[in-house]
Amino acid sequence: MSFYVYLSGEIHTDWRDEIQRGAEAKGLDVVFTSAVINHDASDAAGDHLGAEDNAFWRDHKSAKVNAIRTKTLIEQSDLVVVRFGDKYKQWNAAFDAGYCAALGTPYVTLHAEDIVHPLKEVDAAAMAWATTTEQVVEILAYVLKG
Amino acid sequence: MSFYVYLSGEIHTDWRDEIQRGAEAKGLDVVFTSAVINHDASDAAGDHLGAEDNAFWRDHKSAKVNAIRTKTLIEQSDLVVVRFGDKYKQWNAAFDAGYCAALGTPYVTLHAEDIVHPLKEVDAAAMAWATTTEQVVEILAYVLKG
Amino acid sequence: MSFYVYLSGEIHTDWRDEIQRGAEAKGLDVVFTSAVINHDASDAAGDHLGAEDNAFWRDHKSAKVNAIRTKTLIEQSDLVVVRFGDKYKQWNAAFDAGYCAALGTPYVTLHAEDIVHPLKEVDAAAMAWATTTEQVVEILAYVLKG
Amino acid sequence: MSFYVYLSGEIHTDWRDEIQRGAEAKGLDVVFTSAVINHDASDAAGDHLGAEDNAFWRDHKSAKVNAIRTKTLIEQSDLVVVRFGDKYKQWNAAFDAGYCAALGTPYVTLHAEDIVHPLKEVDAAAMAWATTTEQVVEILAYVLKG
Amino acid sequence: MSFYVYLSGEIHTDWRDEIQRGAEAKGLDVVFTSAVINHDASDAAGDHLGAEDNAFWRDHKSAKVNAIRTKTLIEQSDLVVVRFGDKYKQWNAAFDAGYCAALGTPYVTLHAEDIVHPLKEVDAAAMAWATTTEQVVEILAYVLKG
Amino acid sequence: MSFYVYLSGEIHTDWRDEIQRGAEAKGLDVVFTSAVINHDASDAAGDHLGAEDNAFWRDHKSAKVNAIRTKTLIEQSDLVVVRFGDKYKQWNAAFDAGYCAALGTPYVTLHAEDIVHPLKEVDAAAMAWATTTEQVVEILAYVLKG
Amino acid sequence: MSFYVYLSGEIHTDWRDEIQRGAEAKGLDVVFTSAVINHDASDAAGDHLGAEDNAFWRDHKSAKVNAIRTKTLIEQSDLVVVRFGDKYKQWNAAFDAGYCAALGTPYVTLHAEDIVHPLKEVDAAAMAWATTTEQVVEILAYVLKG
Amino acid sequence: MSFYVYLSGEIHTDWRDEIQRGAEAKGLDVVFTSAVINHDASDAAGDHLGAEDNAFWRDHKSAKVNAIRTKTLIEQSDLVVVRFGDKYKQWNAAFDAGYCAALGTPYVTLHAEDIVHPLKEVDAAAMAWATTTEQVVEILAYVLKG
Repeated sequence: MSFYVYLSGEIHTDWRDEIQRGAEAKGLDVVFTSAVINHDASDAAGDHLGAEDNAFWRDHKSAKVNAIRTKTLIEQSDLVVVRFGDKYKQWNAAFDAGYCAALGTPYVTLHAEDIVHPLKEVDAAAMAWATTTEQVVEILAYVLKG
Repeated sequence: MSFYVYLSGEIHTDWRDEIQRGAEAKGLDVVFTSAVINHDASDAAGDHLGAEDNAFWRDHKSAKVNAIRTKTLIEQSDLVVVRFGDKYKQWNAAFDAGYCAALGTPYVTLHAEDIVHPLKEVDAAAMAWATTTEQVVEILAYVLKG
Repeated sequence: MSFYVYLSGEIHTDWRDEIQRGAEAKGLDVVFTSAVINHDASDAAGDHLGAEDNAFWRDHKSAKVNAIRTKTLIEQSDLVVVRFGDKYKQWNAAFDAGYCAALGTPYVTLHAEDIVHPLKEVDAAAMAWATTTEQVVEILAYVLKG
Repeated sequence: MSFYVYLSGEIHTDWRDEIQRGAEAKGLDVVFTSAVINHDASDAAGDHLGAEDNAFWRDHKSAKVNAIRTKTLIEQSDLVVVRFGDKYKQWNAAFDAGYCAALGTPYVTLHAEDIVHPLKEVDAAAMAWATTTEQVVEILAYVLKG
Repeated sequence: MSFYVYLSGEIHTDWRDEIQRGAEAKGLDVVFTSAVINHDASDAAGDHLGAEDNAFWRDHKSAKVNAIRTKTLIEQSDLVVVRFGDKYKQWNAAFDAGYCAALGTPYVTLHAEDIVHPLKEVDAAAMAWATTTEQVVEILAYVLKG
Repeated sequence: MSFYVYLSGEIHTDWRDEIQRGAEAKGLDVVFTSAVINHDASDAAGDHLGAEDNAFWRDHKSAKVNAIRTKTLIEQSDLVVVRFGDKYKQWNAAFDAGYCAALGTPYVTLHAEDIVHPLKEVDAAAMAWATTTEQVVEILAYVLKG
Repeated sequence: MSFYVYLSGEIHTDWRDEIQRGAEAKGLDVVFTSAVINHDASDAAGDHLGAEDNAFWRDHKSAKVNAIRTKTLIEQSDLVVVRFGDKYKQWNAAFDAGYCAALGTPYVTLHAEDIVHPLKEVDAAAMAWATTTEQVVEILAYVLKG
Repeated sequence: MSFYVYLSGEIHTDWRDEIQRGAEAKGLDVVFTSAVINHDASDAAGDHLGAEDNAFWRDHKSAKVNAIRTKTLIEQSDLVVVRFGDKYKQWNAAFDAGYCAALGTPYVTLHAEDIVHPLKEVDAAAMAWATTTEQVVEILAYVLKG
């Protein structure tokens, strides 16, 4: 069986690519998934269902269409990596972590040391805290190959 | 049966008191619960288990002791109110929302309009978005009394 | 322990009162619950959260506020009675029946014979089909007193 | 992994075909399933188990045989599309929606604007409301391809 | 908290009374429940819903009305005692045992030694096999008082 | 996906073969499973773990080894067929039915008309009652092919 | 609501009393439960069901009777304290910890520093590690009173 | 479908190889999994995430990284074999057994007779107790081939 890893959070750096390249380089049998990470496409995910004057409802529709995808993928995952960058609120990443915690799906966090304190609840329920994508790849290699 | 409402999120304003006073004024049979909201006490929740040099582990221990309380209270709740203020990261609030979403526990959000966009995933899974504590009290009054 | 019975469906006749009076007359220890059955109040349940130009969103907000109540009550029920009258679409009643079926919560239906065919899927998962409120009361009396 | 989509509801128009052709045209890896949609076959699903004088029991037996199929397919689905047309009661469609809601299986509704109000509870728990089969196909394309 | 014990199976001897008297004599805080054990009343539980020509459907209706009671009581139990006597098929007792096994609800069996072999699957999932009601009372006394 | 059908109950007639041949003849994609149906092998399933003087413990060990197999197979099934013949107690068949009922796994019963009354609780939770293996095959054909 | 705490593990020192006295001294609303901790009584819990020549089966019967009690109490707990002393194998304590981990029931461990390494898997899933009963009482006081 | 067997416990003898060779020799379609059983690698599983001065936290990090693997593999298993040798505390093995018990995953134990008494709770919830790897292979052969 392949190992399913969902990559949640920050969409403005190429951390997903780094992890995927690292896993490939090590020959790991991992299927990586994620939300749609094109920011504009994601914000517009519900637009084809009809225009909205109200920004809240436009967001609402798009967020729900996105959730069809993310909910399914998270629930199929063996592991979730939750990435917090240095910009933006990133509440969706923390939301995914809480979702995993309640499901009992293991997740690891990936973030710099300077945000350890505000992430303490999120890290407390995580299986590991990594600061680099290399560390995440090493975790995957260990989990799959020992 | 009393209705159990967990109040999650921001600890720097008195929104919890406002909701509790409002519910009392309307004679609602609600039991309100929350995390320990004394910031210093919360950060020190694990200190009596032994000092830590490393800030990460101090946070880790305290966050887990806090989670004994919050996990139990959230799982006993009929409704969770998740408050986002205008300061700090508040990832724990988003984490609680995700936790509720996975459990199927209904939650409502309480936040200003200017953070609608970054909260779109959190709001998408909520049963309502309120901007004032009065609105939350009205929801409670409606749910309990019709 | 009291027996919890949720009364779902039609709001234009007094079937709920009939069942409650019948249960009281027999001295049954039943707590009856239901959605808010004042039609106008129910439709306006979300109005205090802000006006909507769009009828869909007004309904959406109100339906979700109502669901905070109904979801909790249905999940606490030992039995649900689902009533279909001779008017309106009453899709919410069928929705509640499907919800119960998936939870494994027993429900009985209450409807006239002329709608047996379109209700066959709903009746197939029910524990009984009654045509009168007296029959429902007899079921309750039997279940509680033998 | 293929994406499993169950198509629930109306059986008198060719909306299922439209969605399947649309998905194929876009090269989406979707497996579509549904109840048996030949109306007469569906009504007679239990007839081979013995004739019934009573219409209720004939329906009962057929509905249960059908449920062996539909229950399994719905529980295996990643997404359910629930279609309401302009004729008939279609309580089975609302029943399926409630079933999905309790399971936590995402569903989208497909119906015209004039029945928004009676469907408000069903739409409130849906991930999206579409009015055309093209919109459903666009949702699928987005969910699978981003 | 009281300890809830459901007494399943044989209805032609007074084993239930013996256990209840024994538990009372020892001052145990146990709430005993059971199906309706008046055989005729149980067989007629659905008769008020309308007469049936066909014996299968009469049984079907009554069995489902009974199940409203038994399902709720079994699911609320901390322990189930399943009694097999020396007469009749008693498939309902074995059915209850299987139901408990799947729920993870502990049960003990109460039966004579000569039916050990045909009950081996039922006993294999039980927490104990007793041959006398005194032994069942001793189990209860131990479990509650040590 | 293949459809998984577990065949539970009577081991002294060739009803399993009849169903399998019937399904093959119709080209149905069904995987049939069952307990080990060689009676002597089944009774001796635990003997290699050490001899027992006491018949109860010999049965106990064998029944548990058998349960490793049957529990896994039942939990993987889409449908269970539970067969009651005219001999023996067959409590294991009723146990399997109760197990399915609690899991929410659909099952159909296969038995003659003369035991309808003692099987009423088992039939009440079933999706269908068949009296011949041909009827079971027809159910499978309908469920898989419509 | 009272807070339910199950005290698992070592039975040769008075750590349970220390925690209970400490909680009382602080006026905490905690209900403490545990297995029967009289060693001889526990070993003999199944003896009244009939003598066994084979030590394995004597243990087996007693362990299962004990499990009726412990399973119920653990599943009703808000928190479990798992104590490892310096003698004996204490596999039952580790078993309880694993049981809690799978249920999602929070537990804390109580053990000396010299067994940190062999307990690493047990501690990894715990919410806290305490070395003294005073620390456990402080955790309880914090969780209940803040 | 292959049968998934997780091999838990002792890492200092070659019992895993014996079982695997035995299963191969009999042509059984079994996929065997286990924790990483290189002791040093396992203890160092979290080292690449940063050095720790404190032995507890080093163990903590490694145990959690290991748990990503073991939790997933145990939850995917049809059967778990839990081996207790004659050395070390082996609390992780008992922890795995408790984890399986709560999940309802069948497990068998493999240990010598002299530790029957301290393992009585672990054995009580097991489906079988074996003393040799040959017996485990026989169980597998029986479960898979009858």
